Amino acid sequence: MIGNAVGPSLQNKTGYGGDTKFSYLGEELAHFVAMTSWEALNEQVRHQAKRCVLNHIGCSIAARDAIDVDRVSRVMGQFVALETATIVGRPESTDAPTAAFMNAMTANFFDFDDTHASTVIHPTAPVLASALAIGEMTGASGAETLHAFILGAEIACRIGMAVSPTHYARGWHITSTCGVFGAAAAAAKILGLNAQQTWNALGIAASQSAGSIENLTYFPKNVSVGNAARNGLLSALLAKEGCEAAPSAIEGRFGWARIMGDDIRVSEATKGLGQNWELLNNTFKPYPTGVVFHSAIDASLSLHGQINVPEAVTEIVLLGHQLLADRGDRVVLTPADARVSAQHCIASSVVRGSCTLNEFTDTALTDPMISAMREKIRVKVDSDVPLGAAVLRVSLTDGQQLEVRRDVAHGSLGQPLSDGELVEKFVRNCEFSAWDTGDLPSEIWNIDRQSDIAVLLRLCRADR
Amino acid sequence: MIGNAVGPSLQNKTGYGGDTKFSYLGEELAHFVAMTSWEALNEQVRHQAKRCVLNHIGCSIAARDAIDVDRVSRVMGQFVALETATIVGRPESTDAPTAAFMNAMTANFFDFDDTHASTVIHPTAPVLASALAIGEMTGASGAETLHAFILGAEIACRIGMAVSPTHYARGWHITSTCGVFGAAAAAAKILGLNAQQTWNALGIAASQSAGSIENLTYFPKNVSVGNAARNGLLSALLAKEGCEAAPSAIEGRFGWARIMGDDIRVSEATKGLGQNWELLNNTFKPYPTGVVFHSAIDASLSLHGQINVPEAVTEIVLLGHQLLADRGDRVVLTPADARVSAQHCIASSVVRGSCTLNEFTDTALTDPMISAMREKIRVKVDSDVPLGAAVLRVSLTDGQQLEVRRDVAHGSLGQPLSDGELVEKFVRNCEFSAWDTGDLPSEIWNIDRQSDIAVLLRLCRADR
Repeated sequence: MIGNAVGPSLQNKTGYGGDTKFSYLGEELAHFVAMTSWEALNEQVRHQAKRCVLNHIGCSIAARDAIDVDRVSRVMGQFVALETATIVGRPESTDAPTAAFMNAMTANFFDFDDTHASTVIHPTAPVLASALAIGEMTGASGAETLHAFILGAEIACRIGMAVSPTHYARGWHITSTCGVFGAAAAAAKILGLNAQQTWNALGIAASQSAGSIENLTYFPKNVSVGNAARNGLLSALLAKEGCEAAPSAIEGRFGWARIMGDDIRVSEATKGLGQNWELLNNTFKPYPTGVVFHSAIDASLSLHGQINVPEAVTEIVLLGHQLLADRGDRVVLTPADARVSAQHCIASSVVRGSCTLNEFTDTALTDPMISAMREKIRVKVDSDVPLGAAVLRVSLTDGQQLEVRRDVAHGSLGQPLSDGELVEKFVRNCEFSAWDTGDLPSEIWNIDRQSDIAVLLRLCRADR
Repeated sequence: MIGNAVGPSLQNKTGYGGDTKFSYLGEELAHFVAMTSWEALNEQVRHQAKRCVLNHIGCSIAARDAIDVDRVSRVMGQFVALETATIVGRPESTDAPTAAFMNAMTANFFDFDDTHASTVIHPTAPVLASALAIGEMTGASGAETLHAFILGAEIACRIGMAVSPTHYARGWHITSTCGVFGAAAAAAKILGLNAQQTWNALGIAASQSAGSIENLTYFPKNVSVGNAARNGLLSALLAKEGCEAAPSAIEGRFGWARIMGDDIRVSEATKGLGQNWELLNNTFKPYPTGVVFHSAIDASLSLHGQINVPEAVTEIVLLGHQLLADRGDRVVLTPADARVSAQHCIASSVVRGSCTLNEFTDTALTDPMISAMREKIRVKVDSDVPLGAAVLRVSLTDGQQLEVRRDVAHGSLGQPLSDGELVEKFVRNCEFSAWDTGDLPSEIWNIDRQSDIAVLLRLCRADR
């Protein structure tokens, strides 16, 4: 097997490379994971990681009693041996692979989790779920778990950058397909694998990467996100036992990246590795919807204050980028559709002045005010409106015309959620599923001072 | 979501379609699986299925104590809850998903299992492993298990035909990627799922399909084959609970077939469905090697009788098709390499007059006679030699030249293994791993008369 040389590594702050020249992508990434110490991570990266943890656990709690989560729990529950691991928000205990599966699934269930800006990977769902499960199983500290998560998220995002944008454009559910590498890296770090073992873990993960966009608004999307966490975790355990993978499993002629994509740029995965942290390019959604409509929702919420009588609206035209129309101009049949429907997102925001999970229930879908408003909304492509921006043109019964425009969406890199807003989101997620928030936010901000991650996870159990 | 109409179904002998018109591939395949009765299967198909079972169990027994199998067992064994399912050839009991994983892995471990001629799928490994595991869990009869296997194998092979040859050529390990559908279909049949639920099972499987050729001679190939069985089985259990998939999960714009291939022919999957059985195009290997060299091995074995002194050979030139050279002209470092090395296969066959698993151990690799012979062998592309054929030109120290040619390989569709030869292969596989064959062959030939598949599986346990 002949891999593509990825060239001499850049000198970097974490010192994983030094004078080593790497011949394979997996080799370089594995050295980075195995050799980067907690001390090498700056405070900004550590703090961002805590924001990811807070958001992840809140999203899991929100989805804790969704009907499909119950179904999976019934199926998987038959095959659970140990009670060493927590399923966030639920009463049952489980084993580490099943916890990884379930927690990745619930964190991403409503697509309300985080988004790495350039790849649209939701990195935390698969990676943190793997780190928490293996951390709880092995008695890792909070700092060790956070450390593993940071490195795993970096691997998931950077492998995603090497195959973007064609990988996602081809139809791969990039959170699932790249997430398995991050989950493997995080578990490898907690298990203390050396660079060679970590390289094998990444290569074993490469044969377990799956998930398609066709199933995006259907249950199997949750399965592929869950599998990313579970299979990544098992890849690390198998590598620890001595199992080996092809050196070029990721980027070789018949490797993961090439067979799953049309155009790959291997060097993107390692450029500035250890210096620039992709985790800092991770964003948090204020609304549980497709991120491409967030500017439209910002604009719609501001309209709510201006339009007291929804019946006064005769038409709303959303002007946006082609991608906004491709992803969002959609008939609504299910809550999953509604979350990626521009019409529903705008209608419920204008009518209720709110865009929380409560606006995407079956009740909200059939709310007569929202349904009536949804019918009045047209999506129109306007090449003058850049991706990420939105213009709403509203016609009223009295002949009046309103126009609102938003260029930078709330929650995007240009206007990130503050820590306070993240806590507010966490509280709303807890309220949605009737969960007592308790001390969880402050415990999460203190995660790096906890001697055992199990203590934090204890607070996430429904039978706490 | 808009699927591609697959057109009105052909009238067929199993009567699954009748006047129904199907809009989606998964829909038609699911109806076929749900509605095809045991009585609709003719004796030729049933007998061929028993041949598959015999070969599968023998291959699993051969691999039962391979080092990587022990490693996987140690990792998975930590997370096993139930003791309802058998791992063929091993003492430990396990749960159904883990048994499906382990048995698919061991059956395909040495690539000595069956091969569907036109797709090169090894259908039995993932599909039968799923059927046996769910059959043992639910107390299915031998006939019910065989019935489910036959339908599942048909699904795996036919989905493979819809994406061949570009899917495999792109680098997908087609046994793993298509096997998950067959495993889902087989489990669905045993669980008694209706057509709608079976359709969902296939759609859930579509998001769990993975495995690359880059890892072909490495451990992760075993993981992806194991996952095909396990994930297919779980897909059926999840569908039974009510989980749903995109209707067009297989062939839609961003569905499995399109994102994993460059050119798909959906109608190939349903042409003659229920009339023509792909299982009858399934072949059994006489040698534990890449099937592309089997004619070369036949020729080499005949040379053994003619050359009593291996040292008398100065050179052997293998003339063959381009694909033979692409796959087989290879340096040998590991037993897995040796099984796909034309040089090693020819050398050991000429030297020992035998091509069994004993010729692919570390000891055989370093056997001085075999090593010396390996060095004398050159592979040369000859466009006059068709795919599947082989010519050997031997030069001897006394100046003599020998030439042997084989056009139809032993074990191919043109010269299939007899039932007796399959039993001989089974016995050799048992001998390889020091297993007492006992009554297993006759019990397998009688599988369709057994009231509980668990009775047969009891005979496959190391602690029987």
